Amino acid sequence: MRADRYVAEFLGTAVLVFIAVGSAVLGLPEIGAVGVAFAFGLVLLGLVYAIGPVSGCHVNPAVTAGAWIMRQISSTDAICYIVAQVLGGIAGAAVIKLVASVGEVKTTVDGANAYGPGEGINGAGTFILEVVLTFVFVFVVLLVVRRKAAATAAGLAIGFALTVVHLVGIPLDGTSVNPARSIGPALFAGAKAISQLWMFILAPLVGGVLAALVAQALRDAPEDTEVEKRRIGAPRTDG
Amino acid sequence: MRADRYVAEFLGTAVLVFIAVGSAVLGLPEIGAVGVAFAFGLVLLGLVYAIGPVSGCHVNPAVTAGAWIMRQISSTDAICYIVAQVLGGIAGAAVIKLVASVGEVKTTVDGANAYGPGEGINGAGTFILEVVLTFVFVFVVLLVVRRKAAATAAGLAIGFALTVVHLVGIPLDGTSVNPARSIGPALFAGAKAISQLWMFILAPLVGGVLAALVAQALRDAPEDTEVEKRRIGAPRTDG
Amino acid sequence: MRADRYVAEFLGTAVLVFIAVGSAVLGLPEIGAVGVAFAFGLVLLGLVYAIGPVSGCHVNPAVTAGAWIMRQISSTDAICYIVAQVLGGIAGAAVIKLVASVGEVKTTVDGANAYGPGEGINGAGTFILEVVLTFVFVFVVLLVVRRKAAATAAGLAIGFALTVVHLVGIPLDGTSVNPARSIGPALFAGAKAISQLWMFILAPLVGGVLAALVAQALRDAPEDTEVEKRRIGAPRTDG
Amino acid sequence: MRADRYVAEFLGTAVLVFIAVGSAVLGLPEIGAVGVAFAFGLVLLGLVYAIGPVSGCHVNPAVTAGAWIMRQISSTDAICYIVAQVLGGIAGAAVIKLVASVGEVKTTVDGANAYGPGEGINGAGTFILEVVLTFVFVFVVLLVVRRKAAATAAGLAIGFALTVVHLVGIPLDGTSVNPARSIGPALFAGAKAISQLWMFILAPLVGGVLAALVAQALRDAPEDTEVEKRRIGAPRTDG
Repeated sequence: MRADRYVAEFLGTAVLVFIAVGSAVLGLPEIGAVGVAFAFGLVLLGLVYAIGPVSGCHVNPAVTAGAWIMRQISSTDAICYIVAQVLGGIAGAAVIKLVASVGEVKTTVDGANAYGPGEGINGAGTFILEVVLTFVFVFVVLLVVRRKAAATAAGLAIGFALTVVHLVGIPLDGTSVNPARSIGPALFAGAKAISQLWMFILAPLVGGVLAALVAQALRDAPEDTEVEKRRIGAPRTDG
Repeated sequence: MRADRYVAEFLGTAVLVFIAVGSAVLGLPEIGAVGVAFAFGLVLLGLVYAIGPVSGCHVNPAVTAGAWIMRQISSTDAICYIVAQVLGGIAGAAVIKLVASVGEVKTTVDGANAYGPGEGINGAGTFILEVVLTFVFVFVVLLVVRRKAAATAAGLAIGFALTVVHLVGIPLDGTSVNPARSIGPALFAGAKAISQLWMFILAPLVGGVLAALVAQALRDAPEDTEVEKRRIGAPRTDG
Repeated sequence: MRADRYVAEFLGTAVLVFIAVGSAVLGLPEIGAVGVAFAFGLVLLGLVYAIGPVSGCHVNPAVTAGAWIMRQISSTDAICYIVAQVLGGIAGAAVIKLVASVGEVKTTVDGANAYGPGEGINGAGTFILEVVLTFVFVFVVLLVVRRKAAATAAGLAIGFALTVVHLVGIPLDGTSVNPARSIGPALFAGAKAISQLWMFILAPLVGGVLAALVAQALRDAPEDTEVEKRRIGAPRTDG
Repeated sequence: MRADRYVAEFLGTAVLVFIAVGSAVLGLPEIGAVGVAFAFGLVLLGLVYAIGPVSGCHVNPAVTAGAWIMRQISSTDAICYIVAQVLGGIAGAAVIKLVASVGEVKTTVDGANAYGPGEGINGAGTFILEVVLTFVFVFVVLLVVRRKAAATAAGLAIGFALTVVHLVGIPLDGTSVNPARSIGPALFAGAKAISQLWMFILAPLVGGVLAALVAQALRDAPEDTEVEKRRIGAPRTDG
């Protein structure tokens, strides 16, 4: 049974990278930054419903790191998940390359994250940006998934959270918030992308760990632990 | 009772093609590629909720082929579904033609899928692209629909999965992933589109069958078979 | 209690027209046709959840006509609903006019539906288009609302169905599919819009009645009448 | 336990402002007004699911004012919520400033709301616009959250309601409907923005209070109080 989970993480990350990074490489300039932001979020939304019940649908080492901090996943599983995700990201990027090469597609971007001269933001800004964006994304993920009754809400919250961090970051560094999303495309993009990979591995992991630390400190209102009293949006009076 | 299901598949495919292909033929260039991608996904989202309980809302021979591989539908029904879908796609394309002709609408595209010289991708690339995109779409569809409790999630996952494969493929070959979507518009578009139809019938069927083979091999985590323990996004520790 | 329902239909239609037609009058050209299409669909989505439990959230005489055909609403109520909707549409258009006038806003469109010379489609085409688009929209509405368990799905299906008919029709006649949406803005737009109002009253009502006739003929699969057996998207084998 | 709620309101408002106002400051012109409108709505959607069970996810003094009118929150809590929200908005704006400064990002807008010469609307129009838009937004919020069974619907309705009021107002005054969203960015934008802050504090509060007065007068249909009889969209016959 355990193998199914690793296969799901591999496949899910491959699909995420092929569709979302592929929408940039194969679909720009026609679909614009908004189209790419929705490709990231909506493919993750679909994956949460499709493989969530199989593996939890992390498809992102920063999410796995946060889940490990919150003791939702064992150390062994966390390592295997991350290996599967990185391999999946490489596979997804390879299929983009295959379609573009065999299909003789004119491409305008390579899909790799980037910072510095010629990009929208410098290195120091990228570190802050990626820590904050990953914090926001993983914070939503970890809080949503800890509530058992919220299965349908989970895909919406997680998918759209990924869309919004891309709306902010695409014009700057392309938005990583996911080391596996960055590694695959960088391997096919060349030396500059590879030399900057450490940034898009380190900063998202820092953001994911910070999100877990805050999320586990934040408790739900006590009345909400009983399903029949739950009202999202409506706090109770205490007066 | 069986007749209602075939009528639903006919009507559903006609609505899908009229709205989604029609958004391209009648709505471009105003709505852009992102508008067309959302037209495809959001009309399918509506149809899943509207006719899902009647026929399952396949409205796509590649989905029916995948469901047949997974033994969710009998051979007789699969054939009748596909016939209804193809006829529905032709009807939807005919209504687009009717509105454009009677209404004297200036159109910039014909709504047919296409590859080769003058298009965004060549034939070999199109085959790979359509197999992969259909794999992604049908993989999400088949995994989501096999879980009984996920009725509301199903429309979201399926609709938005169709949107994302269009965000990737619209600038290339227009995205098929659905032979019934390709056949109708091609009949009204002329010789080139008809001569390329085999591609948009064959490749989506290959992708749909591959998705079914992978999906049926992938089992949910055992704890998730009990509804009260389900946490999408939260894997259990095994340490 | 009955008065609450009429107030809700009045307020709901006023909000629909102010936000959705207002997004075109006050928000174009910045938000584009896609922005307007989402304004229509997403404000209706919000209203379905907000006032659906009060009045059913028709906010559209074509929906009320369809619901009356399906015997979901009495003749007296249907008349009162339609009066409330038309008055609400006028109120919503008046507030748009108020904001634009008092605020000295530069506007590029008047928000009225239109056809003929200088528009995207002629009169005959508009009749066909509005009948078909209203059929699609009301067909989804009536099928979704007849299933008790689908409360969350209802807002999604109904809202996004309104978005997709606007993606098709905005570049042509602006899309009505709702006489109350057309009457209010036309009264403030002048003689041409008023002289064409009969089209945007008649065609949506024809489309709504046709949708009701088809929807009531289409029965759900028998297994689906038991909630625990429902699988949207997954037909049963009969082999 | 109370402290968790205030922390959640602080953090939630900081995330709302950083992502949504940040999408304008850091993401324009690439993502356009539609991208910014979705950033506002979709980040709120994610926050409703993430911190709704902790604090109710007001993240907006106008919502808190409306909830106080409807006696959903005590006076003490209302004051503490608003303080936390204002501080959160300042923190979110500070992080935008930090990323832009450290990262040497070229920005085209400052993210503050504005009216008058050089803007899309004058002061009198802004007052009407903000009252009406806040009325619409808070009206949807308060009606949706009072129904216990609608947890998944709540995030959708509330998030997309925020998107649609931005589709209308972004080209005019940038849309506030939330004093905490306006205060933070204004402090970093300079004298003009600070001198206009009273408008974006007063008008949203008026709109929120009006929404509460109407919402509490509007009762659900009596049949709908029983969950098993609820059909959103389908009123009952009374003939």
